[in-house]
Amino acid sequence: MQITSHTDYALRVLIYLAMTPNRQATIPEIADFFDISRNHLVKVVHQLGNKGFVKTIRGKGGGLSLQRPPEMIRIGEVVRSMETHFNWVECFDPAQQRCRLLPNCGLKHLLARAGNAYLQVLDAATLADVLIGTVAVELPLKETSDNLK
Amino acid sequence: MQITSHTDYALRVLIYLAMTPNRQATIPEIADFFDISRNHLVKVVHQLGNKGFVKTIRGKGGGLSLQRPPEMIRIGEVVRSMETHFNWVECFDPAQQRCRLLPNCGLKHLLARAGNAYLQVLDAATLADVLIGTVAVELPLKETSDNLK
Repeated sequence: MQITSHTDYALRVLIYLAMTPNRQATIPEIADFFDISRNHLVKVVHQLGNKGFVKTIRGKGGGLSLQRPPEMIRIGEVVRSMETHFNWVECFDPAQQRCRLLPNCGLKHLLARAGNAYLQVLDAATLADVLIGTVAVELPLKETSDNLK
Repeated sequence: MQITSHTDYALRVLIYLAMTPNRQATIPEIADFFDISRNHLVKVVHQLGNKGFVKTIRGKGGGLSLQRPPEMIRIGEVVRSMETHFNWVECFDPAQQRCRLLPNCGLKHLLARAGNAYLQVLDAATLADVLIGTVAVELPLKETSDNLK
């Protein structure tokens, strides 16, 4: 049971940007910091842009920054935006309705309630809340980010 | 985001057995009812036996039944027993501690809280509770189960 690396990386990008609020960050810099695939990160950042979390300024002096202050970004909203589905079991997928316990399955209702409880905890927290617990990270300065490569 | 088919099938087996309390069921019968792999179901039932949910009587007249009454089987216990891990993101795996936001990452704590909220909903429900919402299922009679093959 896990969230996708796509969502995981999206959350890390947002944390990174929130911790470097006074400058533009770059994809290579973030990929190097977390030691994750640049190609994957390009897709993650593209989606974060489409969903209104990250803005990209192109050209020299450009880069990535948050589109909203961390207090305005709910973690639940990010997870809902990045995960492709919340089909806790097969029958949550409208295309997979073959289980013979349907349509009156108490298990499906229970799993839906559990999934909602999971997302409600994430909905109640903002990116700013997450930063409070993330205090000891040494982020690279813009000037020294080449050293990480 | 989903639970494994292994756990999904385990829960379906338990529901099936709880709805046929007065007789022994068989793996082919359950596999046919749900139209799922017999081989996979063998592994699921084996694990359900090891974990104390299902008992198997071998030989003629034998079969599968619940080891405990449905009121004594918590859905959370089943899910915890059948899922291989609850590594919501990479860093929950003790062998994957490479994220540079560790050890003081607020996101990890938040995801752990959300995961606990998910499991707590499942812990609060028993197999008997699930059955209350599962009323309209037409189960095969033992005598006619061959017709389903």
